[in-house]
Amino acid sequence: MATGGRLAVRLIWGSNTDVGKTLVSCALSSAARRLRVPVRYLKPIQTGVSGNVWEMDGARVARALGAGHDVGSHALAAVAGIAGGEGEGGGGGTSASAFASAATLFGWRNPVSPHLAVEMEGRLVPDGDVVRAIRLQEEAFRRELRDSNLDGLMLVEIAGGPLSPGPSGTLLADLLRPLRYPGILVGSAALGGITGTLSAKESIEIRGFDLSHLLILEDGEKGLNNKEALEGHVAGSEVEVRRMTPLESKTCVTDGEDYVRELEEWLSLTGTRAEAEVVVKDVMDAHLRKVGEMESLKAEALRTFWYPFVQHKALDEGEIMVIDSKEGHQFTTFDGEKGCLAPQFDACASWWTQGPDLQMQMEMAKKLGYAASRFGHVIFPTNVHEPVLRCTRNLLRGPGQGWASRVFYSDNGSTAIEVALKMAFRKYLVDRLGPDCLGDEDVEFDFGGVSVVTQRHGYHGDTLACMNAVEKSVFNGPVQFPWNVQQCVPLQPAYLKQKGGTWSIEVDDGRLVVETPFKSLTDFFDDDIRDFFDQDAELRGLYNEVIRDELEGHDNLGALLIEPVCQGAGGMKFIDPLWQRELVSYCRGRGIPVIFDEIFVGLYRFGYESVKDLLGIDPDIACYGKLLTGGAVPLGVTLAGEDVFDCFLDDSKTNALLHGHSYTAHPIGCSAANFAFDRYNAILKVDEGSRIYWDEDLTAEISKAARVENAVALGTVLAVELSGEQGYNSTASADLVQLLRDRGVYSRPLGNVVYFMCSPFSTKHESCDDLLGLLLELLR
Amino acid sequence: MATGGRLAVRLIWGSNTDVGKTLVSCALSSAARRLRVPVRYLKPIQTGVSGNVWEMDGARVARALGAGHDVGSHALAAVAGIAGGEGEGGGGGTSASAFASAATLFGWRNPVSPHLAVEMEGRLVPDGDVVRAIRLQEEAFRRELRDSNLDGLMLVEIAGGPLSPGPSGTLLADLLRPLRYPGILVGSAALGGITGTLSAKESIEIRGFDLSHLLILEDGEKGLNNKEALEGHVAGSEVEVRRMTPLESKTCVTDGEDYVRELEEWLSLTGTRAEAEVVVKDVMDAHLRKVGEMESLKAEALRTFWYPFVQHKALDEGEIMVIDSKEGHQFTTFDGEKGCLAPQFDACASWWTQGPDLQMQMEMAKKLGYAASRFGHVIFPTNVHEPVLRCTRNLLRGPGQGWASRVFYSDNGSTAIEVALKMAFRKYLVDRLGPDCLGDEDVEFDFGGVSVVTQRHGYHGDTLACMNAVEKSVFNGPVQFPWNVQQCVPLQPAYLKQKGGTWSIEVDDGRLVVETPFKSLTDFFDDDIRDFFDQDAELRGLYNEVIRDELEGHDNLGALLIEPVCQGAGGMKFIDPLWQRELVSYCRGRGIPVIFDEIFVGLYRFGYESVKDLLGIDPDIACYGKLLTGGAVPLGVTLAGEDVFDCFLDDSKTNALLHGHSYTAHPIGCSAANFAFDRYNAILKVDEGSRIYWDEDLTAEISKAARVENAVALGTVLAVELSGEQGYNSTASADLVQLLRDRGVYSRPLGNVVYFMCSPFSTKHESCDDLLGLLLELLR
Repeated sequence: MATGGRLAVRLIWGSNTDVGKTLVSCALSSAARRLRVPVRYLKPIQTGVSGNVWEMDGARVARALGAGHDVGSHALAAVAGIAGGEGEGGGGGTSASAFASAATLFGWRNPVSPHLAVEMEGRLVPDGDVVRAIRLQEEAFRRELRDSNLDGLMLVEIAGGPLSPGPSGTLLADLLRPLRYPGILVGSAALGGITGTLSAKESIEIRGFDLSHLLILEDGEKGLNNKEALEGHVAGSEVEVRRMTPLESKTCVTDGEDYVRELEEWLSLTGTRAEAEVVVKDVMDAHLRKVGEMESLKAEALRTFWYPFVQHKALDEGEIMVIDSKEGHQFTTFDGEKGCLAPQFDACASWWTQGPDLQMQMEMAKKLGYAASRFGHVIFPTNVHEPVLRCTRNLLRGPGQGWASRVFYSDNGSTAIEVALKMAFRKYLVDRLGPDCLGDEDVEFDFGGVSVVTQRHGYHGDTLACMNAVEKSVFNGPVQFPWNVQQCVPLQPAYLKQKGGTWSIEVDDGRLVVETPFKSLTDFFDDDIRDFFDQDAELRGLYNEVIRDELEGHDNLGALLIEPVCQGAGGMKFIDPLWQRELVSYCRGRGIPVIFDEIFVGLYRFGYESVKDLLGIDPDIACYGKLLTGGAVPLGVTLAGEDVFDCFLDDSKTNALLHGHSYTAHPIGCSAANFAFDRYNAILKVDEGSRIYWDEDLTAEISKAARVENAVALGTVLAVELSGEQGYNSTASADLVQLLRDRGVYSRPLGNVVYFMCSPFSTKHESCDDLLGLLLELLR
Repeated sequence: MATGGRLAVRLIWGSNTDVGKTLVSCALSSAARRLRVPVRYLKPIQTGVSGNVWEMDGARVARALGAGHDVGSHALAAVAGIAGGEGEGGGGGTSASAFASAATLFGWRNPVSPHLAVEMEGRLVPDGDVVRAIRLQEEAFRRELRDSNLDGLMLVEIAGGPLSPGPSGTLLADLLRPLRYPGILVGSAALGGITGTLSAKESIEIRGFDLSHLLILEDGEKGLNNKEALEGHVAGSEVEVRRMTPLESKTCVTDGEDYVRELEEWLSLTGTRAEAEVVVKDVMDAHLRKVGEMESLKAEALRTFWYPFVQHKALDEGEIMVIDSKEGHQFTTFDGEKGCLAPQFDACASWWTQGPDLQMQMEMAKKLGYAASRFGHVIFPTNVHEPVLRCTRNLLRGPGQGWASRVFYSDNGSTAIEVALKMAFRKYLVDRLGPDCLGDEDVEFDFGGVSVVTQRHGYHGDTLACMNAVEKSVFNGPVQFPWNVQQCVPLQPAYLKQKGGTWSIEVDDGRLVVETPFKSLTDFFDDDIRDFFDQDAELRGLYNEVIRDELEGHDNLGALLIEPVCQGAGGMKFIDPLWQRELVSYCRGRGIPVIFDEIFVGLYRFGYESVKDLLGIDPDIACYGKLLTGGAVPLGVTLAGEDVFDCFLDDSKTNALLHGHSYTAHPIGCSAANFAFDRYNAILKVDEGSRIYWDEDLTAEISKAARVENAVALGTVLAVELSGEQGYNSTASADLVQLLRDRGVYSRPLGNVVYFMCSPFSTKHESCDDLLGLLLELLR
């Protein structure tokens, strides 16, 4: 990494209005200048812009710096009292000197909160424009620093307190969160300053911001000693508390030059200068240290982590990505070459867990905090608390609607499946052997021979029972775990594929390919459309015959375990619903309990709370995880009907379901799930199944690319199968994945399958179209 | 449940000083009186107590109520200007009328923050005394209400803002958290009032408090319309925002009667009266509804939950406990008979996860919130982020010190064990068959025959591999799961027991009992003491012989898996360290990898970060969970040395450890763990092993009780084995457990074993001695 060109950005927060943010900015800016650190001061949002230039914070800082004040066109329009300036991104001052400059971007005349100023004057600036304008300033400054091979400092002064509304009404701390610059908080020395300052600090930190300093303009002799009290309460954190001399002004800002003279006197005080220089040095040191540390994290990770599913022999530092934070479905990663942070779209949805956008992520944080303080964890058996009760209601009224009456909690998808198998097998045993089998120690039965009917290419988790429930593969051979035994009968599903813009059904592992006139994947699930497809009757017969042939010889089948609609880990393979309906129907006919593994497919992955509504079949048992907590913390659940539950009722305690984990039904996880359900129900439930994320025409175009064997999209998932070697060891997608990462898209292939997965709260027009365009470009 | 006698308590919070908390209290109190709701107003902490009675908020509320003002002795001492009043719990007014009364408990003369007043005047009131005094007031009022069969309202007005320091310096919201009364927040109508009010609200809620109303004294015509902005930002929450007419005073409090006249005028305004009555009605309705709902939760739980390890057939509503919140290791439960909340000591440490005390619980909440906002969840393989890096350092420098170099993350203890077995077996296979076995598909070996050496009565989790690794029992028979196969060789450990005050070693399932002169359990682990025990050489020889006899015939032993020092779920059985050392030594001699299951025993359960330091043996692989996150959320880890890790390095990706979970190394869990480690390291690491929780003499006394077969204590665990039927189905402890619950101790027996488990941050003198006293009383 080059030295020089490193830019430390700091937000200047105030615990509230009028605590001295601008004074601190003046002091820090001029200290930076004295220390020969190139400095740029930025006031993105300024109200009270009128004829008197000193009412603008930027003007005062510019004066303190002895530099020009660059006023953006939006703010200028306020000064001039003219309308206009909307959506111009401020336009402020990317041309200023790299060594010392001040700029104001957006401005309104009335000296009120920005949201009220917009109400009075109009000229709304959307949140995204504010963020983009600041980022442009950062980038421009960074370029100048790079050109001059210097390290610099940018100060961004917030208007009001952290939860003051911005122009759109969005609270400033929420509005600025996509930037997540570290901050300096200017606290209050007044009566009530301790509670105000500490609350402001909590509001900043609960949004994932870091603070390095808490500065307080307080007279150590005459003041309330808020500094000492604050110091006691932030002890042990990273935040350093410092005191600066207050400016006891006899004039006010409207006194113009008089005020500025006072300001300059204050700035020239030895104490002010020394304090400010200490802070600037701290900030620059901390930034350079952090840049250095981030690069070194890779080596430490390589040395101490044991990654899942990663062959460490082949791993080098270059492949390791440093994630500094996540903003909705965007990672902010460290770019070692440039020595700065860079975004990467999380196209794997963080292993398919990504629920919230950034706003929801911050709301979630508060819900988790509340639950942690109210409950922490509490033991579950024979207890009830509000979060688990609400979560159970959400599940039974949601995906369990119409068939489930009981919820069993565990920690993840894998444990939810183990529990589901225990439930199904008990049902099977009781149905087959009668309830007396529970107490009969001498019952003669081939328990070990109980098999589960599954789909080939299925995946249900990595614990032993989950692995025994899928066919032998590289994932579960004896070298992975000597105890692995195939205890399943895996059937080959009929898959749905699009190539060259044409949809077909691939039956019997490709031995029969049925072309269809369908235009999209959803057509296959639409009974009205499907009724007109004249090959369906024939297909149904064929499916039934094959299923019967495969299963008839097995007489000890204890459960059917399937991922309905789509197999995720198996390669994003979409299955003909007709085939799954035939399979379920056959198993039902034989009294085999049906388990839906909805861990990947459920909870709006494909637009439906449960894909049972897409498939038109209710299961006897179903498992959920991943999106259940909205992408926050692990939680798994197994839902079941009362007939399954009843098979565990007995006079003996030992015939209960003896399975549990320490954190079973933990209130924090249940609270996260409840918040996710609140959002799912409010936003996604209302137009269930109708939301389009990936454009069908663009997907069809992708299916026509030379390298593409199959391009399919449903709900949040777009999957593209490339030609070349298939399976886990395939390197067919390696070049494409690298190209995507270079373009800011973090994709994790499944062998030769590249997929994009967005959050269920995404919209097609937000970023999906751009991503499809990029993919098309790279494929061509 | 009786009607009447129901008491709604509301905290009156202010977003900061001087926003009108007392005005609101006056309005609500007098509204309650008009509505014939018995009301009690309480000002626990009052500064500025001097000659002018109207400077006391209680006096003004009393006037508004037309009731007397009861001033506690501590506050009276301030008025009188006399020293004294320490620790008398305020002493205020439990004798006042049940229908309308006001009281002030603790008071200081200087009109400053309480912590400064204490600095100036002394007369500190410890936090616990404040809480106790308020609770006494609540209980007294509730009794009066019960006697008169009425429902009432108690208002508790806070001094300053939520994060203002109380008398001891503890922030008020932290200080009051043990009470967790719902609250009404009085917001600010001033400029900066939105950010101040919302931040205050967040600080209250992040501590687990509920708010029902946000009141703002604002002129709807002339004000800043903060009410409307606030309304927008709390939309969708339970909080209702309401506006009341402000009191635009021309006088100030020191004007005495003039001020009071203004106050009375304001109170008589139709608007003030109407608004206040609406709020009081809301509050009373909400409280009665909540009391009703809490009772109904039991029926819903019974109908929709599927509890782990619970035989539902035998379960009735009476056995279900409603947990309203948790305060450190105290549950606050709903007492249906009395219709109010009651504490229960969490003697099972919430399935052995309980780390923090209440203060740490609230700190943890903020850490979780920060991590959720900064990261949410991010995918782990080939990535690195700060929380997982810090967590890995904490583990390798902590329990892994000296032997482990790699950390593998999963979700709970059970998955950590499955991973550990995969690691150990691979090491075993590579050591035995050579590294080429990985690529050799035709290798001839009895993979399915690989066994694990374990201890009888062991427990390692409920997923299949964990269940196959323990001997057959009621937990893992074919009726529980037909796939269960015993794939272990379970050995009978030598147990340590105390009966009648004498310690003995029980060898070979009781066939040999060796009496010892030891005084406590720790003596068995002390080499210096042990060296003087003349039977040790003989014991060692015996142990070695038995272990050799049991294992010699088995030639396919792939791992040793043990809970070192103590078996938790097996019945809190403590094992002779000499026996475990012999066992490990024998296995080491045969090249069998050694796994320590430290999920229960590790991380200061017994005073040591890892019990390897107690036992004096390093493992090859070790698992942690439970206390790892300080009792917040699920997280499991498996630590291993580099020689184990190396067995997965290969040119083929498929020979990597192919095991993972969606939330692997989730940043929220890692952050929780890091915070726990920070506290463990700062507080517990410094005097590792020396902290006594359960008094040894009292434990010896317990061992002398007639019903007691064995009473042992080590670290945070006290276990008492009762005579009578042994094992899971035993009801030998049922009566004792019921007596304990009646006395406020929530104990969950392990068959005939009753145990108390405290948090590692507990101290002997805090509550442990009392608990032992209670147990002794009940046993006698």
